[in-house]
Amino acid sequence: MEFSSKLIEKAVNEMSQLPGIGKRTALRLVLHLLKQPKEHTGFLAQALVTMREEIRYCTTCHNISDFETCEICKNPNRNHQIVCVVEDIRDVMAIENTGQFRGIYHVLGGKISPIDGIGPSQLHISTLVEKVKLGTVNEIIFALSSTMEGDTTNFYIYKQIATASIVVSTIARGIAVGDELEYADEVTLGRSILHRVPFENSFKNN
Amino acid sequence: MEFSSKLIEKAVNEMSQLPGIGKRTALRLVLHLLKQPKEHTGFLAQALVTMREEIRYCTTCHNISDFETCEICKNPNRNHQIVCVVEDIRDVMAIENTGQFRGIYHVLGGKISPIDGIGPSQLHISTLVEKVKLGTVNEIIFALSSTMEGDTTNFYIYKQIATASIVVSTIARGIAVGDELEYADEVTLGRSILHRVPFENSFKNN
Repeated sequence: MEFSSKLIEKAVNEMSQLPGIGKRTALRLVLHLLKQPKEHTGFLAQALVTMREEIRYCTTCHNISDFETCEICKNPNRNHQIVCVVEDIRDVMAIENTGQFRGIYHVLGGKISPIDGIGPSQLHISTLVEKVKLGTVNEIIFALSSTMEGDTTNFYIYKQIATASIVVSTIARGIAVGDELEYADEVTLGRSILHRVPFENSFKNN
Repeated sequence: MEFSSKLIEKAVNEMSQLPGIGKRTALRLVLHLLKQPKEHTGFLAQALVTMREEIRYCTTCHNISDFETCEICKNPNRNHQIVCVVEDIRDVMAIENTGQFRGIYHVLGGKISPIDGIGPSQLHISTLVEKVKLGTVNEIIFALSSTMEGDTTNFYIYKQIATASIVVSTIARGIAVGDELEYADEVTLGRSILHRVPFENSFKNN
């Protein structure tokens, strides 16, 4: 793409480094900013820089936070004995949006993936194991994605905490609510049958 | 969407004001920035702010420019007697990328659209008419999109410059190169036949 303006070219190049944003989309966004008052671009830039500079990670659960301890870990109304292990910050948001979980989280920051060069030491696994060894945790819920990497990570952690007398569970896999059986894959449908729940429990929301 | 961090929330809100970027995509982009070194966010923010603050519009053709006169209008190798009239900055880029046009441009900044409240006075029409009246222009090529608004704008301008003895043309409409006839709409195919070109000309690229 040819740009008649170096300023535009630089802005487009920076924008197109974001994932899923190609040069064309970047140009569309940049031209949109040009049509808006100058302040809009200023607000956007300021919000991004402030966020990036001031964001912290909760020292307890490694979730993103505006403070040293995140809102969830700080909340005395949450059950600090149940820890949900997730890969990513986004998973915390997704589970929080369900309103079904009142425990706390532990964000690993990824999953073990030798092919991407990610080993256990690059993830926040040791702090989780320590937490368990301190004896303050009653239950660990694994909520990692059900891929080979996710399963490997689950198993790696499980081996290290299995000696502690705590409940270890994984989130249920099965056919999504509203989905039709005939379109489900065999593995998922199989899990749905294997891990069937008592009928009277299936109405309960909590 | 619930955010545990006000900093993230603000950044996502600003990002999601961009066209085609929803809250989810904005969150993905923001979390991507978090994984990158701090400088990346700084570079992005700086590029956007500098672009927005320092960009100018060419006083001759209203194209975006880093200087008072754009690179195209400044270029003595271009034919300043042929003016291609376009709606938008992006159209200039698209035509420049073809490498087929050696004249100069005139960017209207939109098209007449009463439904959107855009009248002729909001577009750069008067400067184009002045240019023609000065007698420095030999040919006007209309390259507006072939919608009702585009045709209205073409006609509005045409009426004002028709008295000058200049050539007025519009870009050719027809079936795209590589397209199959059976899938073309009737209007486009009709235009292709109506405005057929001599066979020996159809090989020429310039």
